[in-house]
This record gives sequence, C-alpha cells and structure tokens, in this order.
Amino acid sequence: MSIYKLLLLPGDGIGPEISAEAEKVLALLNEAGVARFEVERGLVGGAAYDAHKQAISEADMTRALEADAVLLAAVGGPKWDGVPYDLRPESGLLRLRKDLGLFANLRPAICYAALADASSLKRDIVDGLDIMIVRELTGGVYFGEPKEITDLGNGQKRAVDTQVYETYEIERIGRVAFEMARKRGNKVTSSEKSNVMKSGYLWREVITALHKREYADVKLEHMLADALAMQLVRWPKQFDVVVTDNLFGDMLSDEAAMLTGSLGMLPSASLGAADEKGKRHAMYEPCHGSAPDIAGKGIANPIAMIGSLGMALRYSFDLPKAADAIDAAIANVLAKGLRTADIKGDAPSTVSTKEMGDAIVAEL
Amino acid sequence: MSIYKLLLLPGDGIGPEISAEAEKVLALLNEAGVARFEVERGLVGGAAYDAHKQAISEADMTRALEADAVLLAAVGGPKWDGVPYDLRPESGLLRLRKDLGLFANLRPAICYAALADASSLKRDIVDGLDIMIVRELTGGVYFGEPKEITDLGNGQKRAVDTQVYETYEIERIGRVAFEMARKRGNKVTSSEKSNVMKSGYLWREVITALHKREYADVKLEHMLADALAMQLVRWPKQFDVVVTDNLFGDMLSDEAAMLTGSLGMLPSASLGAADEKGKRHAMYEPCHGSAPDIAGKGIANPIAMIGSLGMALRYSFDLPKAADAIDAAIANVLAKGLRTADIKGDAPSTVSTKEMGDAIVAEL
Ligand SMILES: CC(C)[C@H](C(=O)O)[C@@H](O)C(=O)O
Ligand SMILES: CC(C)[C@H](C(=O)O)[C@@H](O)C(=O)O
Repeated sequence: MSIYKLLLLPGDGIGPEISAEAEKVLALLNEAGVARFEVERGLVGGAAYDAHKQAISEADMTRALEADAVLLAAVGGPKWDGVPYDLRPESGLLRLRKDLGLFANLRPAICYAALADASSLKRDIVDGLDIMIVRELTGGVYFGEPKEITDLGNGQKRAVDTQVYETYEIERIGRVAFEMARKRGNKVTSSEKSNVMKSGYLWREVITALHKREYADVKLEHMLADALAMQLVRWPKQFDVVVTDNLFGDMLSDEAAMLTGSLGMLPSASLGAADEKGKRHAMYEPCHGSAPDIAGKGIANPIAMIGSLGMALRYSFDLPKAADAIDAAIANVLAKGLRTADIKGDAPSTVSTKEMGDAIVAEL
Repeated sequence: MSIYKLLLLPGDGIGPEISAEAEKVLALLNEAGVARFEVERGLVGGAAYDAHKQAISEADMTRALEADAVLLAAVGGPKWDGVPYDLRPESGLLRLRKDLGLFANLRPAICYAALADASSLKRDIVDGLDIMIVRELTGGVYFGEPKEITDLGNGQKRAVDTQVYETYEIERIGRVAFEMARKRGNKVTSSEKSNVMKSGYLWREVITALHKREYADVKLEHMLADALAMQLVRWPKQFDVVVTDNLFGDMLSDEAAMLTGSLGMLPSASLGAADEKGKRHAMYEPCHGSAPDIAGKGIANPIAMIGSLGMALRYSFDLPKAADAIDAAIANVLAKGLRTADIKGDAPSTVSTKEMGDAIVAEL
C-alpha cells in the first residue's frame, strides 16, 4: 500500500475547526486501506507568528518541501494587523507558494444545483455553472522586484511594485489551461490588460503562439480583464477554462466563486512542475478565507476543506475513485438538505461544522 | 451669457452614432440660451490612427488642452488589433488622461428602477443601487516606468510593468472620495491589496492618515480588492463611495457597472486639479466601450453619452439645473417604456439610437 506524507496547516480563524473535519475523512481513508496517509501538523500565518515570530517556521517549510502534499486551511485576521509587513500572516502562504514552486493555481467555480438559490444572481444565470480558473501563482506583481517604499522627505513616500512575466512562465501556465480544457469543455479564455500593460501584451502573444503550435484543437479566446470582470456577472456560463495572471486571477477567481453562492464549498489546488519521476509539490486549500468573525463558533462550513482533500487525492495521489467518493458524499449530504449557516438559503435549519463533517464521513 | 468650448471626440465603433444624439442636446441647450457651447470636433483612437497614424493628433491634443471640457464617446476595435503598440487606439485615450492631468475618474454605478430586471442579479440585490467609484486615473501600473519588453534570446522575453504611487497622488484622490461621500452616504470604502503590494500598503496608510486628519466625520472602511470584487456580487448596496487605484478601479468599476444591468446608461467624469482660478481640465465619457459588433446599425444606446454631457454641465459648467433636467428627461423616457436593444428586458419593442435621442430632446 502506498504511503503518503501530508502536511496539515490549519492556520488561523476557522482553519482549525474545518481541518478537524478533514482529518476525520483522512482517518477513514486510512482505516479503509485506500492508502496510508501519514499526517504531520504545522503552523502557518498568525498562528505561526504567535508561536515563533515568523509566518512559517523553517522547520515547517522543510516539512512542506518533504511532504507529498500540503493541506492548508486559511491564514490571516485582524489580530495581526499591526505586525511588521514581512511577518504578516499572508507572507507564510506566499512563501509556501514560492518556495514550493506552485505556479499553477486551479480554482473551480461550481454552482451546486442544491445551492443555486443561495446566489445573488438569478438562478438561470448560475445554475449548472462550472468554470475552472487557472491562475498563475508564483509570478507577476506578487513577487516582482523592486517592491519597496522609499521615503522622499517632506512627508512624501513612493511605493513601487513590479509586475514581471517571462515567456516560459506564461507558457507553462498556458499549457496547464489547455490540457485542462481538453478534459472539459475544450475552450480557454485568456485574460490580461494587453491594451495597457506590456506584460499583458507578452501574455497574449505567448498564449496565441502556444495555442497555434500545440493546442490548435482547443478553442481560444482573449478577453481583457475588465471585460471579463463584467462578463462573469452578465453570463458566466460562456466560460470553461480561464487562464490569467496572479493578480487578475486573485480578483477574478474570488468574483467567480461568489457568483456560485457556494463560496464555503469551493476547494483549490496549487501545483508545481513535475520532476523526472513525475513528482511535484502541491498544496490544497479552500477558496474562502479565515473568516475571523465566525471563528471558534463551530458553524463554519467544512466542505471546501474536505473538497480540497479530495483534490489532493485526485491530483497528488492518483486516487480518482476516492476523490469521486468524496465529491459524491458532499453532493449527497447537500441533496439530503444539510446546510451550514453560510449556505442556509430557505433551509429550515442548519448544522454545525462537526455535524456536517460527520455526515460526510457517514456517507463515505 | 457664458461661452464654453467643448471638444467632441466621437472616436470609434458606436462613438459617432451616440455623439450625434449628444449634439442634438447641445443644440437645444444653445437654443434655449442655457449657455453658449462652442463645439469643436476631433479624432481619437482608431479614427485618428486611420486619418494620421497617431491615436490623437498634436492639433487635437492642443484643442483638448484649450477646451473647457472634452466629451469622448469610445475608442478601439478589432480593426486596429495589428497596429504598433504605441499607436493603438487606447493610447490616445491614455494620453488625454495623462496630459490633461485627469487624476480623478468618477464612475457611478446606478441601477435605474425601470431597468432592475435587466440585471443578472436578483432584483432586491440591485434595485436602488447607487455606488460612486472614485478611480485614480493618472498613476499606478498604467503609467509607471519601466514598462518594457526585453528580448532575452532563446525565444524568451521578459515583460515589465511598474506600479508606482506617491503619497500626494493617494491623498488627492482620497480627498475627492471623502468630499464626494459627504454629499452622499458619508461612507468611503478604500480598496487595495495591502497584504501583497507595497503600493497597497502605502495607499492604506495615506488614506487612514488623511481620514484621521481631515475627514474623521466620514465613515471609512478598508477592503482588499479581491474581497471587494466578491462583495460587489454578494451585497453591493453596502457601498457608497469606493476609492481605489487605476487598475483595480478599471476592473471594479466595470464589474459594478454590469451589476446594474444598465451599462449603456452609465456616464463617467475624469477631472484634473483646479488651478488658481478654479479652472480644471475635464473629460466626460460613457462607461461602456465602442461596441464594434453593433457599430453602424443605429441601435446603440445614447443615454450614457447624453448623461456624460449632463455630468459636464454639472462638474465643468456649474449648470446643475440643466444637468438635473437631462437626468430627469432620461428617467422620463425610461418610465414611458422606451428601450434600446441593450436594455430591452421584457419591453414589447425597442427604439433606435436616433429615436431614443429624439425622445430625450423632446422631454427637455
Ligand atoms: C491571502 C492572500 C495573500 C491571497 C492572495 O492574494 O493570493 C488570497 O487572497 C488568495 O487568493 O489566495
Ligand atoms: C480602453 C482602456 C485603456 C480603458 C482603461 O483600461 O482604463 C478602459 O477600459 C476604461 O476603463 O476606461
């Protein structure tokens, strides 16, 4: 039986609560002999800062590099608003992405039929929605240098961030998008601001050439990022796979997730490049944040977290059947009417984090 | 009677058609003796490129600098996809913004009650929506240097764009937002990515200090740009004035405009700083684009263009009554059921660009 090392980073806010439910699923998978998951626990974000004044410790970074996959819940919260910039909770997350080389962030925006009415959009606009946003995650304005604030005197400061993309970075994320599209609706929408940004101009050029060279069978369209932000609201079902840079991907994937009315439901995967042996670093996290306002109340929705474990089974451990089983279990508990507070809608009552987790385990 | 010089730049696509309707309104204002508007016409965008291989000619730039206000319809279209980067249609618009010093872009997102059902969002989410997005327009990644593509050899290129903000730029746009809020709902939401970008960090710092120093009576909240992209979809009525940078403002204002279902209805104003005499450069344009797909068909909605003229009367010519009259005329024709194709909804029939323009003139 295969042995897999999983690093669990519950992080901040509701992170520990929803992580506990994912651990129940892991325990079940171990019991059922699907594989042997050896779970280590670490700290990231504010939790790590509180423990050792770093948003992730060197020891945990080493564990992350050695793990077969990282499962991260969420980081951040107002508690750490005052910490120095380089130590803020998010820097732990960004370091993980960068040092693990997780350039491909897959963010599905799926509208669960049972939840279509929870959306602020009309039912027919979102029912059946299934978009995959492929976001570049280790480049762009998140990491480009210079990135600094200079004191100019006289009370004036100057802040600079740098958006940088090289051809190979655009090509490798483009490949992920085209490959993904072939397994889905066979359409890729590439988004940038080529009318204003040189990086957008290069982005369009590289994606166009890659398409022509290797993926001419996939339908490709280009859409400016502002137009895409609009079209997501107008008629989101026009999209299949969307590929875009780090910053646009951040905003567009959040917007797309909110369209579905199912934010607490959406997992994500961040993948690195495969080495000679086909091994690659990977991290899985819910699309939602740490929700400090409801932390500790036992009412958070654990589904995105359990779904993220499902994505790990699919993309890191090649256990598609187990992943399908998790997806089916989630669909079943929803069909039975179980709702956490965030997806209440017209449901007569809601269940707790723990009850939702237990119900999914029972289905499995 | 005051004499005002207005430069009309119809631009591309549907621009000329909707400009013609705005000219009818101008003629009426002249006839009625509201003021004397001397209208000059110029070229911008693809139209300017076709005429003299520049996205705006030096002569028209001079006219723009001398005018009391510029009224621009729209630029761009697939026809000019192949023109050199520095001559593309958008560069004419960007040059106007930069050389006229139009740092403050006001983009209202208003949902007209008569059109609430045209939105893809549920009626109760958008009915009565009235947000003012205050977008910084002459800084950030649009204009920062370096902005270049370098050939690295081996088929590799490197593209760089630079996001730069200085304290004074953030302060002056912040002031516009706070002043605006005082005349409206008294609330400002400032948006950036301070968790990732140094410019966002400075932005938050400067807005916070300005608020404390001069605008403590206005409610201020900070919201990360990705969270704002989400919240606009979830519950847009939580916002009054939103202040943000050039790039985030581009996306968020488009998203907000689309929420209303009234995109063809929304005007915008771009304002410079006032000189000693209280004079400032200003440009007014519809929020929508050049819509090349429907250009020349006579079906475009002229309301955003006429509304932009209304904004000019309000912000550049201090003619609030005439501006109110235009707004009322627009509301009246809508109440009477007149609809262009873009806002058809359940309307039994639609009117042409010309019919809509004539109806508004008749109301006036
Ligand atoms: C927490 C933050 C740094 C992060 C980002 O901006 O990438 C988050 O918004 C996300 O989308 O994962
Ligand atoms: C046409 C383009 C350069 C422009 C921008 O990006 O600012 C447009 O999208 C806008 O919002 O006015």
